[in-house]
Amino acid sequence: MSPEMDREALGAFMADEFPQMADEVAVESLGTDAITVRLMVKDKHLRPGGTVAGPAIFSLVDVAIYLMILSRIGPVALAVTTNATIDFMRRPVSARDLLADVRLLKLGRSLAVCDALVRSEGSDLPVARASMTYAIPPSGR
Amino acid sequence: MSPEMDREALGAFMADEFPQMADEVAVESLGTDAITVRLMVKDKHLRPGGTVAGPAIFSLVDVAIYLMILSRIGPVALAVTTNATIDFMRRPVSARDLLADVRLLKLGRSLAVCDALVRSEGSDLPVARASMTYAIPPSGR
Amino acid sequence: MSPEMDREALGAFMADEFPQMADEVAVESLGTDAITVRLMVKDKHLRPGGTVAGPAIFSLVDVAIYLMILSRIGPVALAVTTNATIDFMRRPVSARDLLADVRLLKLGRSLAVCDALVRSEGSDLPVARASMTYAIPPSGR
Amino acid sequence: MSPEMDREALGAFMADEFPQMADEVAVESLGTDAITVRLMVKDKHLRPGGTVAGPAIFSLVDVAIYLMILSRIGPVALAVTTNATIDFMRRPVSARDLLADVRLLKLGRSLAVCDALVRSEGSDLPVARASMTYAIPPSGR
Repeated sequence: MSPEMDREALGAFMADEFPQMADEVAVESLGTDAITVRLMVKDKHLRPGGTVAGPAIFSLVDVAIYLMILSRIGPVALAVTTNATIDFMRRPVSARDLLADVRLLKLGRSLAVCDALVRSEGSDLPVARASMTYAIPPSGR
Repeated sequence: MSPEMDREALGAFMADEFPQMADEVAVESLGTDAITVRLMVKDKHLRPGGTVAGPAIFSLVDVAIYLMILSRIGPVALAVTTNATIDFMRRPVSARDLLADVRLLKLGRSLAVCDALVRSEGSDLPVARASMTYAIPPSGR
Repeated sequence: MSPEMDREALGAFMADEFPQMADEVAVESLGTDAITVRLMVKDKHLRPGGTVAGPAIFSLVDVAIYLMILSRIGPVALAVTTNATIDFMRRPVSARDLLADVRLLKLGRSLAVCDALVRSEGSDLPVARASMTYAIPPSGR
Repeated sequence: MSPEMDREALGAFMADEFPQMADEVAVESLGTDAITVRLMVKDKHLRPGGTVAGPAIFSLVDVAIYLMILSRIGPVALAVTTNATIDFMRRPVSARDLLADVRLLKLGRSLAVCDALVRSEGSDLPVARASMTYAIPPSGR
């Protein structure tokens, strides 16, 4: 199944729809059932002590999974997260970007399910694990 | 059990440790096993179409549960979220603040568990439901 | 909104569709947005040491939430759990039945969301907390 | 890191501690950070219509992750699940065993985190996805 949106199309969509995130987030690689998205970690993402804040990691996973799904169904701005679960397992490596490796596990007519591992660049140890369900509006397919 | 930190102490802690959130979040009420926290919704929390972004709702719940736990164990900056699950159920009412009603379900030696319902001010319909586990460092009790 | 199925109808449905559970599970009370379901704890539910096994608690919550939803939409055998999250917080009281108090948080056209607290009879301390999403087939409404 | 318990030791532990499951569940393969466990599907696991019941899938994942952790820390019967999240994504293939492929994501002093994909034998499509946290008692390491 060929993607509906490639890396360039996803980048343009982000710039249009989420301009406030477009300079923090980048698609590193995109496959049929997988995407890797980078968070360029900045001061505003950090907690006291220098670790990346949980909500910033949640936000990275949320956008990464959203882009995974859009790459398959096209620019459906109305797809919404209905359930998200995240396990925070390790402190990120200080001063490193974060990478979210997403797998598409199900793409149904009305629900899509993905999971993700988040790691610091240059490390294989997972910082966080997440899974999310997106509801796809009827007009979305 | 008397709280370790009251509303004023929680507000001062937020202003010191999370200055970037201190003007967005306010403790509405605080009990032994419950807290209500308000998110003053601003443009930066909104998605295209005017709904509050999922990560902003996640962030509200995260800080609300953190404050619930701090009120019982004192200002332990190192308590960390280990697991979070959130169900997004309804669109928030446009241009209204969000309120998170938190219940403390367990406060153990090393783990605390809370859940929360999030609603738009003036409505009883839940916008989101969340539960989180916090790990409490040994020095934290 | 009047229920589609009352306690008697739910009991008859269980006896027909889930005969293996019908003598273990009983509806204690049923309201518009809430149900309480009892698990009559038996030896087969126990782990070594006498505590109730996690899967037995999961099963109690699953059937309790299923009955909550059926009471509103009628006997739709095809409603299926799509997501379940459970936090195990305390050991149950030995040799006591378990009670699951369910709240209906959302009943949409295609998804229903409930949460539940599980406690030992005679105790207010939650043994477990759970939330589940059910997908409702199009013919189900 | 060499395992504390190999396949034979895990099988013997199951036969001793969980005799009621020992003839339904088998370790297919075991590595340092991964295990595959089979559920020999029987009539008692089925729902009306022939699909495997959600609680039976939950139970498979729970025991598979428990065995993954025991293989690393030894026969600590007191390790307990504290959080479990499961997404049910597809109906299993009728009359086929189920296989749970578990990954060990974190093995800390007090918490271990694993995830799992469940599939029908002979198929690559995931039936379910789950993640669980286990608390390891202090004497457990």
